[in-house]
Amino acid sequence: MAAIHCIQALRFPSRTHVFFPNGDQNRYNIINKKQRGFLVFASADKNSVKEIYIKSKVETLLDSVKWDDKGLAVGIAQNIDTGAILMQGFVNRDALATTVSSKKATFFSRSRSALWTKGETSKNFINVHDIYLDCDRDSIIYLGKPDGPTCHTGSETCYYTSVSDLLENEQVDENKVALTTLYSLETTISQRKDELALPQTGKPSWTKRLLLDHHLLCSKIREEADELCRTLEENEDNARTASEMGDVLYHAMVLMAVKGVKIEQVLEVLRKRFSESGIEEKRSR
Amino acid sequence: MAAIHCIQALRFPSRTHVFFPNGDQNRYNIINKKQRGFLVFASADKNSVKEIYIKSKVETLLDSVKWDDKGLAVGIAQNIDTGAILMQGFVNRDALATTVSSKKATFFSRSRSALWTKGETSKNFINVHDIYLDCDRDSIIYLGKPDGPTCHTGSETCYYTSVSDLLENEQVDENKVALTTLYSLETTISQRKDELALPQTGKPSWTKRLLLDHHLLCSKIREEADELCRTLEENEDNARTASEMGDVLYHAMVLMAVKGVKIEQVLEVLRKRFSESGIEEKRSR
Repeated sequence: MAAIHCIQALRFPSRTHVFFPNGDQNRYNIINKKQRGFLVFASADKNSVKEIYIKSKVETLLDSVKWDDKGLAVGIAQNIDTGAILMQGFVNRDALATTVSSKKATFFSRSRSALWTKGETSKNFINVHDIYLDCDRDSIIYLGKPDGPTCHTGSETCYYTSVSDLLENEQVDENKVALTTLYSLETTISQRKDELALPQTGKPSWTKRLLLDHHLLCSKIREEADELCRTLEENEDNARTASEMGDVLYHAMVLMAVKGVKIEQVLEVLRKRFSESGIEEKRSR
Repeated sequence: MAAIHCIQALRFPSRTHVFFPNGDQNRYNIINKKQRGFLVFASADKNSVKEIYIKSKVETLLDSVKWDDKGLAVGIAQNIDTGAILMQGFVNRDALATTVSSKKATFFSRSRSALWTKGETSKNFINVHDIYLDCDRDSIIYLGKPDGPTCHTGSETCYYTSVSDLLENEQVDENKVALTTLYSLETTISQRKDELALPQTGKPSWTKRLLLDHHLLCSKIREEADELCRTLEENEDNARTASEMGDVLYHAMVLMAVKGVKIEQVLEVLRKRFSESGIEEKRSR
């Protein structure tokens, strides 16, 4: 009873769990303060303790989100490798808890008033690697890897309607999703490659010349890599390094287009390599 | 009157403008159908016509957005070069119209019930290059270049609270924003560089060896560029190209860390270079 008074005096917030060993090294006593003035005693093994501990941390996380008057926050799914914004939905407490435990991006469908895991019908799940909250705690990023196209139209992302295209009266092209610089360049190079199948008029662009002449392409890649190194060896300024790195990237991307390799594949290789080496590094500490 | 009957028979939707030359080659007659059965006749010069035309297109765009019951849609600002999600706010009709005309990311502040241009206080504007609507037309990406850190905390983006960190009980680090693969790798290399200032214990990692030995680093970059080329020259499989490109990228990024150059700078160089060459290409057609 003295212990209870002592713990009551500490005034834990609701949902606090207190664990302490009970002599048996594989078991803990648990005091679970579910609400003010109400204490629950229990005893559990190490694994259950870990489970209760994680559950308690998730509850704290869910409590920390600033849910709106409908119990919702904005949820944005982003491709961890390319940075592409895949889709945006709304997330409630259950949707976030489900995503934390299942690692599949889950939303709350406002039209159906039900939880909705992206991919439950199409099987194109978004496998969540981490979740980020914004400074206001009312906006959430699901950073993950999609199993396939995210949009129900079959488009890679839901954002394929460009306002500048609309204002210039062009057709909306579902293949032209919102692209950041690297992927915009990748698309341009890929278009040049496709255009090679058409009758050529006039002087070919530099990209087309590189796509057609593999000897020229490889000699340029080796030359640009050498020039990048020389910005270090000859202590050239940073702007020169950025420019030479741009040349290396562009020429290497033309080679990748020739081979039909996507930047996303390269980034996936790097992610897997470095997350594994990160684990190795932690183990060796 | 015959013309009016003819135009009425065409049943234009509201806000349609019809322009036709009126004999004077610098002037047009305009029929502005504001609502069913009500036609406005006017006459204007070419520049005014262009202005009215664009205004009419913007109105059509604004009409096409599926505003919610409060007249809002979700607005997400994304860095055009890095793909980083900078912030998320809400957008109403006026905010979108303002962004289209000013090219500065503008939102509707729900707490102040007022338009709010990001940067109006901090001067860290987000310069919008294009705007994308999602398939449902109720979510908007402002794809732009920030003038400085976006978050009011001084963090590059508002998303610096990692749920996996929270669940592992680590401190929230405002310098550790949501990062996609390339920028996560860049951050890791940069951390290894910073760690070189501390007393070293044990065998240094490969990254640290490269950071310390510039001769080794440059010879690796040249070697990896050569190996990338050989995947084309010797017709190796695509997985090999992706892996060798990963090696080129990683080693080049170590050189960039030595020189203090960010990937974002390289992408800005590429964006400017290719948007200019795009213009050149259009001119030469």
